[in-house]
Amino acid sequence: MSATREEVLRDENLIEYLQEIARDSAFLHGVLMRTKETPNSPEVASYAPFTLFPTRVPSAVFTQVLTVQTHFNRLVDRVSQNPSFLEESLASTIKVDDFTARLFNIYKQVKEEGWAQAIVLGLNRSDYMLDQSPDGGTSLKQIEINTIAASFGGLASQTPDVHRHILKVANLLEEQNRILDNNPAAGLARGLAKAWELYGSESAVVMFLVEDLQRNIYDHRYIENELWKKNVPVIRRRFEDVCRTGHLDQRRRLFVDSKEIAIVYFRNGYMPQNYTSEQSWDARLMMERSLAVKCPDISTHLAGTKKVQQELAPAGVLERFFPDEPETVAQIRATFAGLYTLDMGEEGDKTVAMALANPDQYVLKPQREGGGK
Amino acid sequence: MSATREEVLRDENLIEYLQEIARDSAFLHGVLMRTKETPNSPEVASYAPFTLFPTRVPSAVFTQVLTVQTHFNRLVDRVSQNPSFLEESLASTIKVDDFTARLFNIYKQVKEEGWAQAIVLGLNRSDYMLDQSPDGGTSLKQIEINTIAASFGGLASQTPDVHRHILKVANLLEEQNRILDNNPAAGLARGLAKAWELYGSESAVVMFLVEDLQRNIYDHRYIENELWKKNVPVIRRRFEDVCRTGHLDQRRRLFVDSKEIAIVYFRNGYMPQNYTSEQSWDARLMMERSLAVKCPDISTHLAGTKKVQQELAPAGVLERFFPDEPETVAQIRATFAGLYTLDMGEEGDKTVAMALANPDQYVLKPQREGGGK
Repeated sequence: MSATREEVLRDENLIEYLQEIARDSAFLHGVLMRTKETPNSPEVASYAPFTLFPTRVPSAVFTQVLTVQTHFNRLVDRVSQNPSFLEESLASTIKVDDFTARLFNIYKQVKEEGWAQAIVLGLNRSDYMLDQSPDGGTSLKQIEINTIAASFGGLASQTPDVHRHILKVANLLEEQNRILDNNPAAGLARGLAKAWELYGSESAVVMFLVEDLQRNIYDHRYIENELWKKNVPVIRRRFEDVCRTGHLDQRRRLFVDSKEIAIVYFRNGYMPQNYTSEQSWDARLMMERSLAVKCPDISTHLAGTKKVQQELAPAGVLERFFPDEPETVAQIRATFAGLYTLDMGEEGDKTVAMALANPDQYVLKPQREGGGK
Repeated sequence: MSATREEVLRDENLIEYLQEIARDSAFLHGVLMRTKETPNSPEVASYAPFTLFPTRVPSAVFTQVLTVQTHFNRLVDRVSQNPSFLEESLASTIKVDDFTARLFNIYKQVKEEGWAQAIVLGLNRSDYMLDQSPDGGTSLKQIEINTIAASFGGLASQTPDVHRHILKVANLLEEQNRILDNNPAAGLARGLAKAWELYGSESAVVMFLVEDLQRNIYDHRYIENELWKKNVPVIRRRFEDVCRTGHLDQRRRLFVDSKEIAIVYFRNGYMPQNYTSEQSWDARLMMERSLAVKCPDISTHLAGTKKVQQELAPAGVLERFFPDEPETVAQIRATFAGLYTLDMGEEGDKTVAMALANPDQYVLKPQREGGGK
């Protein structure tokens, strides 16, 4: 007979035993990262952080997420295509944030020159918290949307099997049966393969632009392997490699190490420290100017900044992007947690006062990708 | 167009690149071992040794292996059931080899008392070399048969996918298509599950008797996970655990940590250093005396010693075990490489002289399992 989670949680010995089972299962199923100590060693790996039991998500909330994700993707796309909104939203940020200013500068240069490539690939990850209201109801609050280097789709492909095994050994058979399959690596690869096909050159390759420290390489490899299965060739290169060997030809085709690049898939370039030299910035500009399909392009990267997300929050703004879709607007807005400016001035002062009054009710997030508290 | 292996082998850069791909692929597919430095840490792993490309095996030889394996399994079974043959074969060995003598002593005690359990499970691994004759022909030479703790069936389940990926990236597509699926972990688990079923108690468990240093734990885990899928419960215990908490009841049922043991699956106990105390030997005797199904039992363990294998080599011996099957005898004998005694006396002296005359033609193997050169 199947146990209940509450019974299992009370049994300390079992929990300890399940931790052993869980760690080895994560290894066997490839839920891996390289270690902090040796982030570039191909010889050792550890497991990526994961929960012992899967998180329970009410089915209504799950359905809601699926629906709203399409809306978010369309919203990001429309924002990225709206120069005046991007410019207005980021005007105050680029005055004080050198990183965003440099990205914005690349955006302006490419826009003025004219986009070489009409196709853009967006692989976005939208992050949520499950908000428990005092009456016990659960609702979905979006934390952020990641439009560049959204990670863990590869490892997430493997976690259902890890959880299934843990629940099996814990004799939580009913829960085990409820775990859904999920293969985001295959989905991400489908997007990349489609863009590669649209680029239209059999000999051109997908280039993963990767960090110098490749701790999360296994997450990438899942997507890469799915691409190989589809006969789409992949290379991995760092900014430095692009600086050293990259160039554009007269048609603005991008070549790196003499290979024509069909797609630049940015798994790097979202933090100031990713740009270790002026050459890195030159390389970014070159890639953005190129005929290669970018995932994401510079507009989509900017559309994912927190400042833009904050500017979408006030009444009337979403309506500008979906003028004839009140339903879409309502569904997106339902997931908004409050986003507040810290700009100097009256509105920023109000935010500060509000946060100081109830500090445990807010989180402070940096403007750019890559974490923050 | 598909490349050839010779082309690939000439391209040093490609080979280097394939090594990277191969290592990461081994990680993703769970071809893992714990590291030498931290053999018991659940936090880090490395990959198990493997070849970059799969070994080519002529199809005739492959078919031969499949056929002869059944014969070898039957031979081991018949030898294990033949006390006088075991006794005669090992008489000289037990005089000089304390380890084999102690095992033989357990065998004698249990035999005198009478076997509690008629069912024995054999999970044997037969190792071969492909012998190239001067005329270019390939033939199969058996190195040894492992009747206890035969390892790497779990990891071998995963290597076809690793090789497929390497060959894909190397553009060796024709070779890639020729790789066969292989799932020995599932096969081994089927054997264990069948023995568990025959033991006939739903609440009894399969006990993996494991080493103190569990470097090869992932290999075990594959078999364990296949058992869980079949709803066969598994525990892992060391000699020390059996010493501390193991006992037999009046019906000679074995209990460890208050759990009834349906199967003792020996992944330990094949080398003298596995027995760290007299208590380990007591525990081995207790397990052998018990009603639990042993994999292998002490008779089968002894049947796998090199000495016994050597005693099977002379003309007329195989015929004693397969009196009406000349075809079986011929097929087994065709795989025999020479096995020569080093016993004191005329025959041993001849071996020594022969080996000294052509030292690169022979390997020296220890009497017991666990490697040797």
